[in-house]
Amino acid sequence: MSMGKRLSAEFLGTFWLVLGGCGSAVLAAKFGGDGNPLGIGFLGVALAFGLTVVTGAYAFGHISGAHFNPAVSVGLWAGGRFPTKDLLPYIIAQVAGGLLAGFILLQIASGASGFAIDGSQAGAFASNGYGALSPGGYSVAAAFLCEVVLTAVFLIVIMGATHGKAPAGFAPLAIGLALTLIHLISIPVTNTSVNPARSTAVAFFAGSGATGQLWLFWVAPLLGGAIGGIIYKWIGNDR
Amino acid sequence: MSMGKRLSAEFLGTFWLVLGGCGSAVLAAKFGGDGNPLGIGFLGVALAFGLTVVTGAYAFGHISGAHFNPAVSVGLWAGGRFPTKDLLPYIIAQVAGGLLAGFILLQIASGASGFAIDGSQAGAFASNGYGALSPGGYSVAAAFLCEVVLTAVFLIVIMGATHGKAPAGFAPLAIGLALTLIHLISIPVTNTSVNPARSTAVAFFAGSGATGQLWLFWVAPLLGGAIGGIIYKWIGNDR
Amino acid sequence: MSMGKRLSAEFLGTFWLVLGGCGSAVLAAKFGGDGNPLGIGFLGVALAFGLTVVTGAYAFGHISGAHFNPAVSVGLWAGGRFPTKDLLPYIIAQVAGGLLAGFILLQIASGASGFAIDGSQAGAFASNGYGALSPGGYSVAAAFLCEVVLTAVFLIVIMGATHGKAPAGFAPLAIGLALTLIHLISIPVTNTSVNPARSTAVAFFAGSGATGQLWLFWVAPLLGGAIGGIIYKWIGNDR
Amino acid sequence: MSMGKRLSAEFLGTFWLVLGGCGSAVLAAKFGGDGNPLGIGFLGVALAFGLTVVTGAYAFGHISGAHFNPAVSVGLWAGGRFPTKDLLPYIIAQVAGGLLAGFILLQIASGASGFAIDGSQAGAFASNGYGALSPGGYSVAAAFLCEVVLTAVFLIVIMGATHGKAPAGFAPLAIGLALTLIHLISIPVTNTSVNPARSTAVAFFAGSGATGQLWLFWVAPLLGGAIGGIIYKWIGNDR
Repeated sequence: MSMGKRLSAEFLGTFWLVLGGCGSAVLAAKFGGDGNPLGIGFLGVALAFGLTVVTGAYAFGHISGAHFNPAVSVGLWAGGRFPTKDLLPYIIAQVAGGLLAGFILLQIASGASGFAIDGSQAGAFASNGYGALSPGGYSVAAAFLCEVVLTAVFLIVIMGATHGKAPAGFAPLAIGLALTLIHLISIPVTNTSVNPARSTAVAFFAGSGATGQLWLFWVAPLLGGAIGGIIYKWIGNDR
Repeated sequence: MSMGKRLSAEFLGTFWLVLGGCGSAVLAAKFGGDGNPLGIGFLGVALAFGLTVVTGAYAFGHISGAHFNPAVSVGLWAGGRFPTKDLLPYIIAQVAGGLLAGFILLQIASGASGFAIDGSQAGAFASNGYGALSPGGYSVAAAFLCEVVLTAVFLIVIMGATHGKAPAGFAPLAIGLALTLIHLISIPVTNTSVNPARSTAVAFFAGSGATGQLWLFWVAPLLGGAIGGIIYKWIGNDR
Repeated sequence: MSMGKRLSAEFLGTFWLVLGGCGSAVLAAKFGGDGNPLGIGFLGVALAFGLTVVTGAYAFGHISGAHFNPAVSVGLWAGGRFPTKDLLPYIIAQVAGGLLAGFILLQIASGASGFAIDGSQAGAFASNGYGALSPGGYSVAAAFLCEVVLTAVFLIVIMGATHGKAPAGFAPLAIGLALTLIHLISIPVTNTSVNPARSTAVAFFAGSGATGQLWLFWVAPLLGGAIGGIIYKWIGNDR
Repeated sequence: MSMGKRLSAEFLGTFWLVLGGCGSAVLAAKFGGDGNPLGIGFLGVALAFGLTVVTGAYAFGHISGAHFNPAVSVGLWAGGRFPTKDLLPYIIAQVAGGLLAGFILLQIASGASGFAIDGSQAGAFASNGYGALSPGGYSVAAAFLCEVVLTAVFLIVIMGATHGKAPAGFAPLAIGLALTLIHLISIPVTNTSVNPARSTAVAFFAGSGATGQLWLFWVAPLLGGAIGGIIYKWIGNDR
């Protein structure tokens, strides 16, 4: 497969991850206002994020490997499954795809009368945050720990489910549902990133608060991803 | 497989899509009235639409290909996967199956005392709409963009998951869950169509408002489907 | 496989269907009282019913075929897939397994202080009903139509997903998720049966109202199942 | 596969089960306070517990068999599928992994201002309980019966879905979704254990109430697991 097609797949897959995951959060999570159970809530958003990966990985897995996430690319590299030379192009394609999705989402969302982004609120335009910008008011330390640990386990699941001895064909389901699970746990903490491209994609539309905290959503997921890749490299190899 | 059996499968599959998706919306989404969490909400409706395709595609995929949607047939045709001569018969079978489901649903729904369709309300009888008939009050431009983009990605997922290099057997799951995801994002915008047969099936029972806006739910999904088919045709082929 | 083991599998599988489906409805659907979103609601109950079949069919499918439902046995018989001589033993095992589950569920449920079954209320002890005993107050005609149509489609999905040309191994998932979908649509109408053994299993614990209406939940599902079996027999065979 | 790697897999898998299942319960179930439908509720927690097993079993199944639960190890031993000599090491690894997850979860959860564990409340820090510590106020007898029966069926599903005649590759899905189903039924009764390692992992952080009731969440699941293993051993073997 040519590099151009692989990068196109990463671009489109990350576009879908942000449009679907952040889109459901912005458009549908709180439909009807506070206390209205018609909206999909955190459960619906968690499902949406996971399904972007389930569907994207069945569609693009055979083209690019379906990372859609710089922390996944870095984790697979740390685990010995991804070549160093492809790392930067993949990450650039992921961030670009995510940003386009953020832009398209803004066009759709702003089509509702009364739409406005209040960057001082936690989770504004589906942005990630800690402290005052954490949905549940979690500290920077809790947010950092949470993102590191969850990204590490995410990578362990990814490497395990794509191992040659794992049942063939089920990896997209296992990996996507792992992302759903991660969101079920941690939306209250950081609005859940584990993916620097997803965080970047909406931060620039959410305002200065989110961009000021963006460092954590690069450092913690990349660190966690590398840790997970290294742990699995040891456990998963039966040599 | 004979054309009669293929068209019967498309008829029954689209019947199931409308009965299950629109049926859950009409009968169960708001059970108990506003604010009652017993009802299944948008999350339940999103799941229901997706499961009609998961189940219908496992049941009928080996007979007709399981399109159940004119935008899918047109998108696969644009992507070089479906012959021109089958396009019109498929679309007619899909619209007819959908209309029968709308009729049966009306018989069931009207069995509850106090049942009435108020065509001036957004989402009346599960109809699609924009502007005053959009559940969240989204403009015609936002509705159009949303339907085009989501149908395009839907077709990309469909073509990718049914590609010869994708894991065999998982396509119905990936495609159905893509439809769930699409609903998780966009019920507030247009009540989610991405399927002209589904929109048509209920519009005529919902009243003049819905029929007056039906054009958008043919033009946007068909356009989006064709765009998606063409995009995947380029990315997915490793020639 | 011996008939004793096959009937044991049907007994246990129907036990699980009733314990899981009706159990989640009785114990967890309305947890915390009206308006409390902690309870699992109709969506959770729909998921639970479906998962009893997904899990039961992976566990017992290779032993008994995993019907767990007289309407399924009758439908498969009508569709030419099940021998006449096995029909009665299967149905007896299913009803017996369901009744044991109803009994066990009553022991658990009555362990909460203040537990009481009010048979005059729709859905008491997860019973099925129409008219005054329909959760949404649906007429007997609507209830009958709904049960016939949904059981018919259920059988079509079952026969399609287990057809030799359908992807191998996915049938339990497709069939179980079809049951989830059926519940997403029709809990408000009849509390959803499509299964005479499930209706019988709780009716005798729910009181005279439910037993007086039990006839419908034998006649309509069996009729619908037979219709579905016959329809698929024609569509699915490419001779 | 070396015993060290197998035990590492059990350690990490049980870590994931507790972090994901109990983590979602502690951090996200009641987000926003009573009556707020944004939180994931019992349905979300049920899904989270199941997905820890779905994802963990695809990742680690080929390494350790993916028990993550002393009742599963004991049940498989009773069913003739697991050697006596591995029983104790597996259980120690499971409990240790669970305890680490409880510790990490406490670090994250305590990062929110105002966080406190009130051990006199049912379900404190996701602990299991009966009587005054049962979420729905269920008696010790109901709790015991519920845990025994559900663990027994859990083992039957596990042994059936991993039987050589069951469809290959689907076992992690069937088993994980069985755990989701078990939670959909029984969170109101005991906050759902069926897993002594999961109960132990949070009891010591939840306070003296939970540790004083911990005996039941060892005895009942281990008893139920053994019963289930023995039942399936008879039904599943066609000799």
